[in-house]
Amino acid sequence: MSRSISLAVIPGDGIGQEVVTEGLKVLASVLPQDVKLETEEFDFGAKRYHATGQTLTDDDLARLKGHDAILLGAIGDPSVPSGVLERGFLLKLRFAFDHHVNLRPSKLFPGVATPLAGSPEIDFVVVREGTEGPYTGNGGAIRTGTPQEVATEVSLNTAFGIERVVRDAYARAQARPRKKLTLVHKNNVLVHAGHLWTRIFEQVGAEFPEVTTDYLHVDAATIFLVTQPERFDVIVTDNLFGDIITDLAAAVSGGIGVAASGNINPTRDFPSMFEPVHGSAPDIAGQSKADPTATVLSVALLLRHLGYEAEAARIDAAVQADLAERAGAPARTTVAIGDALAARVSA
Amino acid sequence: MSRSISLAVIPGDGIGQEVVTEGLKVLASVLPQDVKLETEEFDFGAKRYHATGQTLTDDDLARLKGHDAILLGAIGDPSVPSGVLERGFLLKLRFAFDHHVNLRPSKLFPGVATPLAGSPEIDFVVVREGTEGPYTGNGGAIRTGTPQEVATEVSLNTAFGIERVVRDAYARAQARPRKKLTLVHKNNVLVHAGHLWTRIFEQVGAEFPEVTTDYLHVDAATIFLVTQPERFDVIVTDNLFGDIITDLAAAVSGGIGVAASGNINPTRDFPSMFEPVHGSAPDIAGQSKADPTATVLSVALLLRHLGYEAEAARIDAAVQADLAERAGAPARTTVAIGDALAARVSA
Ligand SMILES: CC(C)[C@H](C(=O)O)[C@@H](O)C(=O)O
Ligand SMILES: CC(C)[C@H](C(=O)O)[C@@H](O)C(=O)O
Repeated sequence: MSRSISLAVIPGDGIGQEVVTEGLKVLASVLPQDVKLETEEFDFGAKRYHATGQTLTDDDLARLKGHDAILLGAIGDPSVPSGVLERGFLLKLRFAFDHHVNLRPSKLFPGVATPLAGSPEIDFVVVREGTEGPYTGNGGAIRTGTPQEVATEVSLNTAFGIERVVRDAYARAQARPRKKLTLVHKNNVLVHAGHLWTRIFEQVGAEFPEVTTDYLHVDAATIFLVTQPERFDVIVTDNLFGDIITDLAAAVSGGIGVAASGNINPTRDFPSMFEPVHGSAPDIAGQSKADPTATVLSVALLLRHLGYEAEAARIDAAVQADLAERAGAPARTTVAIGDALAARVSA
Repeated sequence: MSRSISLAVIPGDGIGQEVVTEGLKVLASVLPQDVKLETEEFDFGAKRYHATGQTLTDDDLARLKGHDAILLGAIGDPSVPSGVLERGFLLKLRFAFDHHVNLRPSKLFPGVATPLAGSPEIDFVVVREGTEGPYTGNGGAIRTGTPQEVATEVSLNTAFGIERVVRDAYARAQARPRKKLTLVHKNNVLVHAGHLWTRIFEQVGAEFPEVTTDYLHVDAATIFLVTQPERFDVIVTDNLFGDIITDLAAAVSGGIGVAASGNINPTRDFPSMFEPVHGSAPDIAGQSKADPTATVLSVALLLRHLGYEAEAARIDAAVQADLAERAGAPARTTVAIGDALAARVSA
């Protein structure tokens, strides 16, 4: 294992800077003394877009590529037209660095509020495909702006792209105690993509005889996420379905304030990117109100990806202990939560 | 208003026959003496498919077309490959009869259990587009069955198709006390379809100055459906997003046992079709365990569509009263619930 980490840091917009500061604080505290942490900060986001018109250039990508991993706060601002930063930055980065494993764990920690009645056991991971499906930007429109306009969106799905993410999901299921993998799709309507996903899912399954599998249509999956979330262990799904069900999963397991994610390229040909699921929340930016927990948990995913399993586990434990103490206590600032977590991981 | 109703009845598979029987019982009880009800039963579904290989022929469509409306129980059986009946019957019928307004009300009646903590106020309607989007069957695959397979799904969206369903949704919002309409899409990623939906939504809004509007990405909408369902009044959305969020909406507002739906062609050029959102539930078929409430509420939607507003309201009130009595009481049979509702509406 390399004893140095070269990290690209992208605070971004809104609360991004605040939560990233705390994430880095916890990272610095958890790392053993002999691990050298080098960070380079990048100014991507709305401000740069307004100043230069740029979202992410080839040169930016070349500079990012030199790092071991990327930590991102949040990108997005109401002053930028919808889609510009999402497609020009977030999706561009995922596609450029071939982040095909979009990893989103959902765990309801003790003491954390959920909108669900009772306190269901929630501990599952969604492996969302990150480089295909309806996210490729394919499609177009004719007679734009007229009553005869026709617009298309094309979902692209390849055996190659599905197989690698499905295999990754099986391996994750295999490594977990319950060893269960659920495919979520809509193969009774989207039959072309659906048959391909289903075929690959069954085929790769032969390599993992210990993993039990099932299949749910995406609409049914949303029902089970609120009525029986305990039935899920690992879920593998398409890019768009993954987008939808992971927001729902975050909502039922404590909210997007604690939802972490990794945009992972397991080959390590490119740096992977870790970010909280929440957005830039401009309404509370600069007020030290944002919860940095999701960013801190994203740092744990980052460490695990780079091979620092013990340090990642210490962060998870610190978050769990901190969350347990929050119930009924007065709200703390972004900085106070970061300080508390940093203290816990170094203790 | 015509004082006769000619109804096509499609019991279908699994519990379909049982719930339709109760739906028709309540319909017969609620109708004034002078309204002549004529029904014709059709044997569509798995049994017919196995016997003849047919799902829905041109001749079937011609016979169905002669009726004022269609009441459907459920179609689908594990013995039929996934997609065959869904696409060959359900979707074929929606497209053939241009059922572009897929109406799905969500109301949490007092006393009804919800997976959500607290008892949030839930009373909204989803207007799902029913004839476009990713449901058109466009797309295909090459190199099928090989490691080089590529499969596509094409979402088709037209200004014409969007405008009519958006206008219908505005009119429904206008007629409700809160007068609020939310567009749900994913216009920051699916930009071609998203821009078209957004443009039409704003354009048609000019005709409804009293209706307040907002926009949510579909992923965010799933969060609000579990954290703040009271914020919704009327939602208008694309075919696939509507499929997904209406199952979630049903789950939070009492489950699919009480979720009704209408596949409506407001022009009346073709009969509209009313059906419970639940499926054929083969595991409990024939045991008088199925809850016929969703079918009975679908009958209310049917009556409302045909202009029998007072009768529809009586069914809604009967269901509300019946549900309020259920809490803590022993489970009743399908027939017992139907009998109770029939007695209430005729009282
Ligand atoms: C901002 C948007 C492009 C993004 C997505 O749709 O993937 C977000 O919703 C997410 O889930 O990371
Ligand atoms: C059975 C299937 C084709 C259908 C759909 O996807 O529309 C169902 O899920 C529904 O919501 O009515």
